Amino acid sequence: MSRFLSQRFAGLEAYIPGEQPQDMNYIKLNTNESPFPPAPAVQEAVNAAEIGRLNLYPDPEGRALRETLAKRYGVKMENIFLANGSDELLNFFFMAFCDEERPVAYPSISYGFYPVYASLYRLPHTEIPLREGFRLEPEDYCGIGKNIVIANPNAPTGQSISVDDIERIVQSNPDHAVMIDEAYIDFGGESCLPLAGKYENLLVCQTFSKFRSLAGGRLGFAIGSPALIGDLDKLRYSTNSYNINRLTMAAAIATIENDGYYENNSRIIQENRSYTTEALGRLGFETLPSRANFIFTRCPRVDGGRLYRELKARGVLVRHWDKPEIADWCRVTIGSREQMDIFLEKVREILKEAE
Amino acid sequence: MSRFLSQRFAGLEAYIPGEQPQDMNYIKLNTNESPFPPAPAVQEAVNAAEIGRLNLYPDPEGRALRETLAKRYGVKMENIFLANGSDELLNFFFMAFCDEERPVAYPSISYGFYPVYASLYRLPHTEIPLREGFRLEPEDYCGIGKNIVIANPNAPTGQSISVDDIERIVQSNPDHAVMIDEAYIDFGGESCLPLAGKYENLLVCQTFSKFRSLAGGRLGFAIGSPALIGDLDKLRYSTNSYNINRLTMAAAIATIENDGYYENNSRIIQENRSYTTEALGRLGFETLPSRANFIFTRCPRVDGGRLYRELKARGVLVRHWDKPEIADWCRVTIGSREQMDIFLEKVREILKEAE
Repeated sequence: MSRFLSQRFAGLEAYIPGEQPQDMNYIKLNTNESPFPPAPAVQEAVNAAEIGRLNLYPDPEGRALRETLAKRYGVKMENIFLANGSDELLNFFFMAFCDEERPVAYPSISYGFYPVYASLYRLPHTEIPLREGFRLEPEDYCGIGKNIVIANPNAPTGQSISVDDIERIVQSNPDHAVMIDEAYIDFGGESCLPLAGKYENLLVCQTFSKFRSLAGGRLGFAIGSPALIGDLDKLRYSTNSYNINRLTMAAAIATIENDGYYENNSRIIQENRSYTTEALGRLGFETLPSRANFIFTRCPRVDGGRLYRELKARGVLVRHWDKPEIADWCRVTIGSREQMDIFLEKVREILKEAE
Repeated sequence: MSRFLSQRFAGLEAYIPGEQPQDMNYIKLNTNESPFPPAPAVQEAVNAAEIGRLNLYPDPEGRALRETLAKRYGVKMENIFLANGSDELLNFFFMAFCDEERPVAYPSISYGFYPVYASLYRLPHTEIPLREGFRLEPEDYCGIGKNIVIANPNAPTGQSISVDDIERIVQSNPDHAVMIDEAYIDFGGESCLPLAGKYENLLVCQTFSKFRSLAGGRLGFAIGSPALIGDLDKLRYSTNSYNINRLTMAAAIATIENDGYYENNSRIIQENRSYTTEALGRLGFETLPSRANFIFTRCPRVDGGRLYRELKARGVLVRHWDKPEIADWCRVTIGSREQMDIFLEKVREILKEAE
């Protein structure tokens, strides 16, 4: 940090995104992207006419896209907030609703950005430990009198909780805001969106970066009560009013209108998830049951850090963290069958060398 | 605000962007967009292959674009920070460098977002009055021991100060960060970018939204010392690491490589600015000399609010503020000759009715 940076940020440790090395063409199984390109309709939507209008600001209210989302999810436009990726949305949640009087709680093992936001805004925060087997116990979040952020399915474990469990958590903390981060909900999980119209204190966050093959476009959204959405909008209009670019809005509308394409892709990813989990099982790996587009897995013979490094040396990127509780494990994005076969082949090579 | 919003934001008044009504096709002279579409090369850059890769995250370091900008401006990649529009960049400036110990100062009449950021972060701030004729007096900023933000040319007045003046301000506040917001520099102003490599405490902010016809793409950048750029990056990686989408990066590289197209557009806008200023002069308007793609003008016979409303009723949008010191005035974006002719025709109609 320079001598000009506010002392507020002296202890801040920024988030470290999954590496995006440009030195060679890796099989990228480290940032949970979809292996499938956007639907053909997205190509048509990002057309010469749209590009020709880039000299004009986007609609800061994003009305056309919010109407499309509202129709898709059976809510009203005022229930929807758009963000430049769901990270921006999560940032606004921590900024808007949490403070000295309203601490925030989230699972001790979850998306690595949550503690960064807590540190950035110097928030009192509680990291609630997972139970045995990385299980998130809903009871641990009931009536705790704190704002709550839960990724469901959780990352990097891939495990999920039920909508009933979420409803109990939301109901039992009526004076605090609850954010359910559903970045990975469309790979076999059960969304709690039906609750979003029902509880004043619930925000459900989704992203276009995973299931919807639009990580490069940067779009996330929240569905929740008009009260919470209005608060988020107040912060958006106080930081960056035109936060979503025109081409992404056009691409996103075409995306929503072509759910069938993405649902088919999700089925393939779920098949590849079973295929990979079973193949790893035969190699002696322990893999947590996942409802996301990634698996969390460990090999009894090669520790997580070594597996990560050996795979990288062979052109396959997976994600590994040094955090002691999960240092044995790697998170592996589920890609195409071809990508998973190469991954498995490299794993077999590494195991052979480790004998 | 809802009962969940932090009390920190109880007094916050969000920024109000220029209206973007969707009810009819207005002549939009209210948000300082370019009337020209992006260069043909931008159409080629945002191609099927790029769209087909939207399933992948963008490079969070934006290396290809930063290299292009570095080459263009004769600096190094580590001198460049990319933002999702220059508003995001300004937001980071106020957040990163200003606090109780380091108050911030900016002109009392300037870009309306500055006071919003000051309020958002509850910063001690000083609004330094402009002198007679909306003149910004550089002496008022020398040795004041505060962080400083100056738009040059200033908005909504269009007036500018010299690079020598800026250098004196930067030199005389060596322990404070100075941000020169050059959103409108490419319409006849003199950029202070040559100073950016020279002073540790200087950041120069530019945007792709005006001169570069890319308002819809959302891209701003800062050039400054690696120390300040590193601080901004720390905050970016603590809020939203993937802040620029892929298509905008591709479009921006093509933009930089086609400066000739944009310079020609700027010449046309400067001609239209003279043309409009002279025509208004013949109608009795007083117009400040402008080095931006807008003019600040008033009619002795019709006050600013009325002119704005009457123009809007006739399908022409200009910008007006109720703030008493400038309530007589309107800010009019300089568009194409056809747009300015319609604007002038409507002004003549309004004046005739006001007789």
